[in-house]
Amino acid sequence: MHFDHAGIATDDAATLADLFADLFDAPVAHEEEFDGLHVVFLELENGYFELLEPVEEGTISRYLDANGPGIHHVALETDDIDAALETARSHGVELIDEEPRPGAWGHDVAFLHPKSTGGVLVEFVQH
Amino acid sequence: MHFDHAGIATDDAATLADLFADLFDAPVAHEEEFDGLHVVFLELENGYFELLEPVEEGTISRYLDANGPGIHHVALETDDIDAALETARSHGVELIDEEPRPGAWGHDVAFLHPKSTGGVLVEFVQH
Repeated sequence: MHFDHAGIATDDAATLADLFADLFDAPVAHEEEFDGLHVVFLELENGYFELLEPVEEGTISRYLDANGPGIHHVALETDDIDAALETARSHGVELIDEEPRPGAWGHDVAFLHPKSTGGVLVEFVQH
Repeated sequence: MHFDHAGIATDDAATLADLFADLFDAPVAHEEEFDGLHVVFLELENGYFELLEPVEEGTISRYLDANGPGIHHVALETDDIDAALETARSHGVELIDEEPRPGAWGHDVAFLHPKSTGGVLVEFVQH
């Protein structure tokens, strides 16, 4: 699979976007409000940072309350998300999303439960 | 910059390597014992997972004790690590490594302190 992005939970996406743009040559590629989040994608040469700032209560605000800001998930791109989920299912991996659902930037996404994947919250993305 | 790898703290690199190879089409690309760690690089199409299993006490064993297994850091590749560190310094970023040091797989590496970078532990890598 293809690394797509690292998802970062933050309480200040604008400030972090400015800093990461300077430090990592990672300009803003896309920005939207989605699912109660202000979402900013910063473009690396071969992928993205996805900054996730809550604008209402939800999983990211609860994550920030529990853990503080930082790396929230890793997203991997696949051209067959249904097959990727079926492979995960066949390995007994617990799925957060049994079926792909609409995600940020108009992509189909599905998350695997970190308790099945070594504590790593993995998102499958199909563009 | 270029995404290089996501570093994963684990207490069982061999089992996680087998699972990730199957789930993510990410076969083992490199394996070594380095700095008190069993390190396994799993190859994605455009980067790596770096699995980090402690074989002695150190920062990763302490991380596991405090946080459990999961995503530990994100590594970005640069062709001028000294310039990257200088840019970070000029932004007031606290550096864990003031100068590049030898890292896994024979690369030069330097870490930025997560308190300066939105809670994200970032590693610069120069191959």
